[in-house]
Amino acid sequence: MPPIRRAATALAAALALFALPAAAEEVTTFSLENGMDVVVIEDHRAPVVVNMVWYRTGAADEAPGKSGIAHFLEHLLFQGTDDLAPGEFSKVVEDNGGTDNAFTSWDYTGYFQRVAADRLELMMKMEADRMVDLKITEEDVATEREVILEERNQRIENDPSALFGEDRRAAQWMNHPYGIPIIGWKHEMEGLTRQDAYDFYKLHYSPNNAILVVAGDVTPEAVKALAETYFGPLPANPEIKPRARPQEPPHRAAVHLDFEDPRISQPYVVRTYLAPERDAGAQEKAAALTFLAELLGGSPTSSLMGRMLQFDESLAVYSAAFYSGESLDDGQFGFYAVPVPGRSLEEAEADIDRVIETFMEEGVDMEAFERIKMQLRASEIYAKDSLQRLARRYGEGLTSGLTVEDIQAWPQVLQAVTPEDVMAAAREVLNPLNSVTGYATRPPEAAPAPEPASAPVAETVPDDLPVTEEISQ
Amino acid sequence: MPPIRRAATALAAALALFALPAAAEEVTTFSLENGMDVVVIEDHRAPVVVNMVWYRTGAADEAPGKSGIAHFLEHLLFQGTDDLAPGEFSKVVEDNGGTDNAFTSWDYTGYFQRVAADRLELMMKMEADRMVDLKITEEDVATEREVILEERNQRIENDPSALFGEDRRAAQWMNHPYGIPIIGWKHEMEGLTRQDAYDFYKLHYSPNNAILVVAGDVTPEAVKALAETYFGPLPANPEIKPRARPQEPPHRAAVHLDFEDPRISQPYVVRTYLAPERDAGAQEKAAALTFLAELLGGSPTSSLMGRMLQFDESLAVYSAAFYSGESLDDGQFGFYAVPVPGRSLEEAEADIDRVIETFMEEGVDMEAFERIKMQLRASEIYAKDSLQRLARRYGEGLTSGLTVEDIQAWPQVLQAVTPEDVMAAAREVLNPLNSVTGYATRPPEAAPAPEPASAPVAETVPDDLPVTEEISQ
Repeated sequence: MPPIRRAATALAAALALFALPAAAEEVTTFSLENGMDVVVIEDHRAPVVVNMVWYRTGAADEAPGKSGIAHFLEHLLFQGTDDLAPGEFSKVVEDNGGTDNAFTSWDYTGYFQRVAADRLELMMKMEADRMVDLKITEEDVATEREVILEERNQRIENDPSALFGEDRRAAQWMNHPYGIPIIGWKHEMEGLTRQDAYDFYKLHYSPNNAILVVAGDVTPEAVKALAETYFGPLPANPEIKPRARPQEPPHRAAVHLDFEDPRISQPYVVRTYLAPERDAGAQEKAAALTFLAELLGGSPTSSLMGRMLQFDESLAVYSAAFYSGESLDDGQFGFYAVPVPGRSLEEAEADIDRVIETFMEEGVDMEAFERIKMQLRASEIYAKDSLQRLARRYGEGLTSGLTVEDIQAWPQVLQAVTPEDVMAAAREVLNPLNSVTGYATRPPEAAPAPEPASAPVAETVPDDLPVTEEISQ
Repeated sequence: MPPIRRAATALAAALALFALPAAAEEVTTFSLENGMDVVVIEDHRAPVVVNMVWYRTGAADEAPGKSGIAHFLEHLLFQGTDDLAPGEFSKVVEDNGGTDNAFTSWDYTGYFQRVAADRLELMMKMEADRMVDLKITEEDVATEREVILEERNQRIENDPSALFGEDRRAAQWMNHPYGIPIIGWKHEMEGLTRQDAYDFYKLHYSPNNAILVVAGDVTPEAVKALAETYFGPLPANPEIKPRARPQEPPHRAAVHLDFEDPRISQPYVVRTYLAPERDAGAQEKAAALTFLAELLGGSPTSSLMGRMLQFDESLAVYSAAFYSGESLDDGQFGFYAVPVPGRSLEEAEADIDRVIETFMEEGVDMEAFERIKMQLRASEIYAKDSLQRLARRYGEGLTSGLTVEDIQAWPQVLQAVTPEDVMAAAREVLNPLNSVTGYATRPPEAAPAPEPASAPVAETVPDDLPVTEEISQ
């Protein structure tokens, strides 16, 4: 009994703490004359700074047949410029006690360093340099192409859940390039050239297609002065236009795919639906879908899926729902279920459908709804604790078509969601015609799979669960 | 009895006739200095001529987001030029007692006129004019866009089998633009502009991207003189390069899709596989697949599908197999089955699989094999009877990456196929991982479908059965 009471007390305390809306962080935004946007997040708790340059370009902006070039170029940005030798960038960061990395997704490419606050000028100088003065040789390209191919081997070819995810995405998007993997199709990666990299660079890397996000122990005035010094002189590219990718036609057929791989130890089923993303000035539907995912398959102990499939009856060893809505174009709403041994994937799929039907009939569980609201407030507060996470939130949001105001309004938009909004979003999005259902199994003739390691579930849950899938350098 | 005897006699006569290889038609080919290829097929049986201009460009060469522009431009080529008023082209043809039309597919766009032989010069003059001097106004574009949208309504939106075909194609090609409909996605067609049409025109319409095919009562010398006069002065476009569309990654998952439409009166199932196309200098595999389609599902009375599903047991009211291999990139091999009332699509799909298994076990029926060989020889001879069909064969072949030699060798390549070739091709192509299986049904809650008209089968067999799908103007 006592532990339960203590837990209850802790929950009460948490409820009191999170009852107040989280204060917005101190954010200043401005643009340089060449069109480069700057976001400064002040936080003077420690003498460190995170310096990020985000480009409004990613894998969904690649030319047909050139898949992987956005990510390949991200790698090549660590090669030399007119002022820096190949590899020198990261070495300078390291020599100054910092860390750096980069990442590519469908909608963005980002570069960052975390350094002592007094090294910010050096970071900006180097980022401005590689924005326009990249120098890559045929040899760099040949070497780095081997690196990205090996990266594909490791991340995708060696991981059946990643292969399965590629196939499901290709089926989900009939026309939009979100159906093409960020890292690229292997056969196209093999053909990427130095010219392809330069073409993409010239087309997309320019100050008016970039956002500088600086978070930490800095003042907006100091950042402005540095940005004007280093990025200010770079010319805007007049060819940069708002991104317009091919959009989806209406989906008229539910798609099912059977993926077999001898390395799959526990069969599982994934159902995804095309879903609206967060739109500038209109995030309400996305907010409702955020609740819907939590209500249906957030926590294994309190979500409807968890209760129906894992606790009330032991039908699944794992189940979850998710919503990925931070993107420029349509996102996804989805379900996973890993049935218990002996239960078929057909049965597991029927279980998912039963959860949806039950939800549609019974409506929103108000206790769960209020708990989720509180958890979302809490996660707001936790998010502020990480400089890097905060900086990323702005970089991701701005490269996904949102404004600073949208990003700051999001917590309130979430808090304003009503149960009726959730039901309306569910009715709209859970349309079988927009769905792809994938079965991942071992071929019947395959040898028994190796005994699952300590965490069998993690092994079977695809990589693409996170809201923003991306590849770090 | 007597009718049967007569039929047998006729067959024996046909066998004697077709035992000899068909003589190659009289074909002369040459190129102009600007790179335009010319094919002349002499046939002096009647004083008529077919004049065709084929462009090595089609729907698979469109920019992302611009689907339908190849076909839209084909329409706009009947608008004015600097010398011709809008609509004047076809009027001149008609006033001269001729007929004209045009067609667009994924790999080609073709224009043709059939006129008295002495009007050839006028036709060439007009074709040369619209190759480079198209003049279209915003008004033309607005009007013609309504026309193509209405065409889409008629051909696609009003025809559930066409909608179903679009969905299956989108699932079949994960990366290659063959997955995009020739006529275009409706939402993209609505946005096509005059500038889009001109961009496509400037990029693809030039003598070095075109083939002139003239068939009929002409001499190569006369055609050469005319071609040099009218097409010769047009400058080559140095930007024209060999077409390189995004290719498919390996397919790793069998795809299934459920298409429901209240207008479907008889449910049916279609299974397709990606299949190699006819390649220049290497048509053997395609030839074997041509036999495979005939053996498995050519004639309802003698193919394995017809016998097993329609005659031995009454499981299907219609069944067929097909192979479409005349394309620049991967084609398709496929099966259709329309089960008898009361038999489910799952059972119909299992029937298809049973036919495949039986074939793999029993191998090639030699009697059927020889009959198909003879029929292919016969169809060669019949083909020569139509000037237009003969001319099209060269236009289609040359725009699909074949050479004149390939086109002429095809009948012999077909005759050289062995049963072993067929089995090897079957083993390679009938790989479930490359398959898309579609179920077309009426939604359970739909009102009873209207009574099928006199030809229910035709109603349910999708439009995309023909080997070369295309849209005529």
